Amino acid sequence: MRSFLLKALKDIFTPGRVRTNADDLAAWGVDWTRNFKAAPGAIVFPETVDEVVALTGLANAQGLALVPSGGRTGLSGGAVAADGEVVVSFDRMNRILAFDPVNRLARCQAGVVTAALQAYAHERGLCYPVDFGSSGSSQIGGNVATNAGGIRVIRYGLTRDWIAGLKVVAGTGALLDCNNGLVKNATGYDLRHLFIGSEGTLGFIVEAEVRLRPPPPPQRVMVLGLNGLAAILPVLEAFQAALALSAFEFFSELALTHVVAHRRLQRPLDKAAPFYALIEFDAAAEDTALGVFQAAVERNWVADGVISQSDAQAASLWALREGITESIAPLTPYKNDLSVRVSDVPDFLDEVDRIVGESYPEFEICWYGHIGDGNLHLNILKPESLATDEFYEQCHRISPALFAAVRNRGGSISAEHGVGLLKRDFLEFSRSPAEIELMRGVKAVFDPNGVMNPGKLLSG
Amino acid sequence: MRSFLLKALKDIFTPGRVRTNADDLAAWGVDWTRNFKAAPGAIVFPETVDEVVALTGLANAQGLALVPSGGRTGLSGGAVAADGEVVVSFDRMNRILAFDPVNRLARCQAGVVTAALQAYAHERGLCYPVDFGSSGSSQIGGNVATNAGGIRVIRYGLTRDWIAGLKVVAGTGALLDCNNGLVKNATGYDLRHLFIGSEGTLGFIVEAEVRLRPPPPPQRVMVLGLNGLAAILPVLEAFQAALALSAFEFFSELALTHVVAHRRLQRPLDKAAPFYALIEFDAAAEDTALGVFQAAVERNWVADGVISQSDAQAASLWALREGITESIAPLTPYKNDLSVRVSDVPDFLDEVDRIVGESYPEFEICWYGHIGDGNLHLNILKPESLATDEFYEQCHRISPALFAAVRNRGGSISAEHGVGLLKRDFLEFSRSPAEIELMRGVKAVFDPNGVMNPGKLLSG
Repeated sequence: MRSFLLKALKDIFTPGRVRTNADDLAAWGVDWTRNFKAAPGAIVFPETVDEVVALTGLANAQGLALVPSGGRTGLSGGAVAADGEVVVSFDRMNRILAFDPVNRLARCQAGVVTAALQAYAHERGLCYPVDFGSSGSSQIGGNVATNAGGIRVIRYGLTRDWIAGLKVVAGTGALLDCNNGLVKNATGYDLRHLFIGSEGTLGFIVEAEVRLRPPPPPQRVMVLGLNGLAAILPVLEAFQAALALSAFEFFSELALTHVVAHRRLQRPLDKAAPFYALIEFDAAAEDTALGVFQAAVERNWVADGVISQSDAQAASLWALREGITESIAPLTPYKNDLSVRVSDVPDFLDEVDRIVGESYPEFEICWYGHIGDGNLHLNILKPESLATDEFYEQCHRISPALFAAVRNRGGSISAEHGVGLLKRDFLEFSRSPAEIELMRGVKAVFDPNGVMNPGKLLSG
Repeated sequence: MRSFLLKALKDIFTPGRVRTNADDLAAWGVDWTRNFKAAPGAIVFPETVDEVVALTGLANAQGLALVPSGGRTGLSGGAVAADGEVVVSFDRMNRILAFDPVNRLARCQAGVVTAALQAYAHERGLCYPVDFGSSGSSQIGGNVATNAGGIRVIRYGLTRDWIAGLKVVAGTGALLDCNNGLVKNATGYDLRHLFIGSEGTLGFIVEAEVRLRPPPPPQRVMVLGLNGLAAILPVLEAFQAALALSAFEFFSELALTHVVAHRRLQRPLDKAAPFYALIEFDAAAEDTALGVFQAAVERNWVADGVISQSDAQAASLWALREGITESIAPLTPYKNDLSVRVSDVPDFLDEVDRIVGESYPEFEICWYGHIGDGNLHLNILKPESLATDEFYEQCHRISPALFAAVRNRGGSISAEHGVGLLKRDFLEFSRSPAEIELMRGVKAVFDPNGVMNPGKLLSG
């Protein structure tokens, strides 16, 4: 990084909040993908909105590339800085600025960690219901930038549904106050929704006004052993017709084997089943749920099941699902985060199994995901004998067929991880050329000089 | 309209679906505002998406101005054609194309009337919960274009929250399939949300994939007489803390007087109160609600109350609120549809009363609205002695002070009616110059030749 630029950064941020040592560059230059090599030019740590405005002005004047950086828990390379960029870390903008009990709003700086907001809400008798595996590290700004979803989307929706207002520094340097916490506001284009899910390519989310809600009633968790792929949909439909679900997750026997071994957990059921469903619902609906379970056994969809009788048991059952990612990490999984309509799930699973099986019969597929909202995490596991590079290369060869299977169903090649660097060159499998052209047009309006997270989402 | 253009329209639509007679021009050239004089060049009635694409191509080539037209129930002039435009009526694209029971989706052409969709859902054991006074005439396309809200927003949200996919013909002529009914889709800018609320200025909504939900449980309606302005918030908070509300409406004694006289209804309570709250909730919570009511009487917030014991009674109580618009229509009201944060409502009401009272002590203000979401309908009633033009002129003189009171609270000058022609020149009271500039940039991307609803929302 040229010294006059470094000096300009130090003028804005004070020297203490500009870092260029190798360890920091390596740490702040990557996210959880680990597919990319970190090579940022510097890392800066703003403490105020004004500093972010000043930085954006400098970037536009000097052609600096800026990479917004939250908890760096992303899985698509959206926060990767691999090309001399300035990483803009929100670690020091981590305060909850205001609580509004009447409107049930919390005004958060971008760097507030998701779990900290959840705890803050809890202390005030309320709840922030968007939750996912990385909530202990992910930051609100990053959640907004990727429209994070997670495990209770069928009940509580996505991050998008909880954002009542956003303060944004656009790529132009303009400071915008979008929607200001209003419920109803029909005064033209809702720029808030444009920034949600924009992966840092249009501007910096610097503050979010987040809606809170009353805490959910006590919950029960049920894990069912399904007799086959064909049982997934009828079981989901039977439960959804009878009661309101908070989660409907699924995982395969292979996924269960890994998580049980890795975490030394007990198997939930005596006998293995090809697939499992984890279902969460209000404790008040327990009898109804048990009735649906009985009927599902009678119809031969379900072999066996277990239901939590305490919060501790519920947590143990959730561990079977939530521990999967971590348990397969040592096996160098080739990960894909896909979605189709719920009704297309069984047929889609089947086709992907076939595509992978035909090309590489020795590859194992570890399936799990949020079936209730059509979101499937596909993990192809590396055979021990195969070198990592060779394995990735072979997987990349399957990608076009895999993504074509998504496209044929009008699905999404990235359900919740975002496009970032990882899926950028495959965007056309989920968005039409006309849409991509319009997206480029929008990008040019908000970031005419291309300083915001260049090369992410859209190729340069 | 020049004859070669008329011929080109007839080539696209067949002569039977191009109308230019004076009566039709007058009818299709206006919406419910009636503030503007209709002067369209022609009305066309597409039956297919291809026809809309062809028309948009023609408009771009020939510089035709197009006005998308739904049920024309708007109250901001968004569907007004006053300058020789071609009105594009979706009256003939009024079919529900597909029902997807697993994903609970209905795919609707733009011209499906809201009440028809509600009935369709009802027949299938489901519910489309967005509801408002004009649902018997308003069309889905128009609902999407204005992000219609209505009476149960605090429970079920806005139109935005129920749109799983949109088919749109952008102003460029490009046909876009936005989101395709997926729950999770993190593949870049969500153009669907940009079109929602864009008032026909970016493109034509030609199809919407609408989410349905299970019907709500039986409801109860309570009408309370409030002892004063200061009681509104504590009463709302007390009810919201204890139970989930489906609606929290309010109206003033003046509003009640008009509706009771106009519809020859019974007063709900023996004694008049300055303000009334209408509260709807699940019948199962009736005891809880009665407890909150008792406590509110003891704290002197509430003088008296009544609760429905049947659906017929509930409907009679709702009539007190829903009949207001119609009952004051003969009094030539100067209407404003405003929103502020719920917590700002009492202070805002007070300031507006003062602003109007100081300038025109003889004007009566009829307040009602959806207090639960901060949306207030302000109606200034014309004194009988005053000529209409003079009345409007005097009201317009108050508008800047009124809108400044909105702006000072970060509120919205159009909570749910949209900007259209009526509020266009006041947009700066709710959106900053930087936001308006970006909105213009977005408009130029989607509609570079300005053929889509020119002069609406943004000045030309």
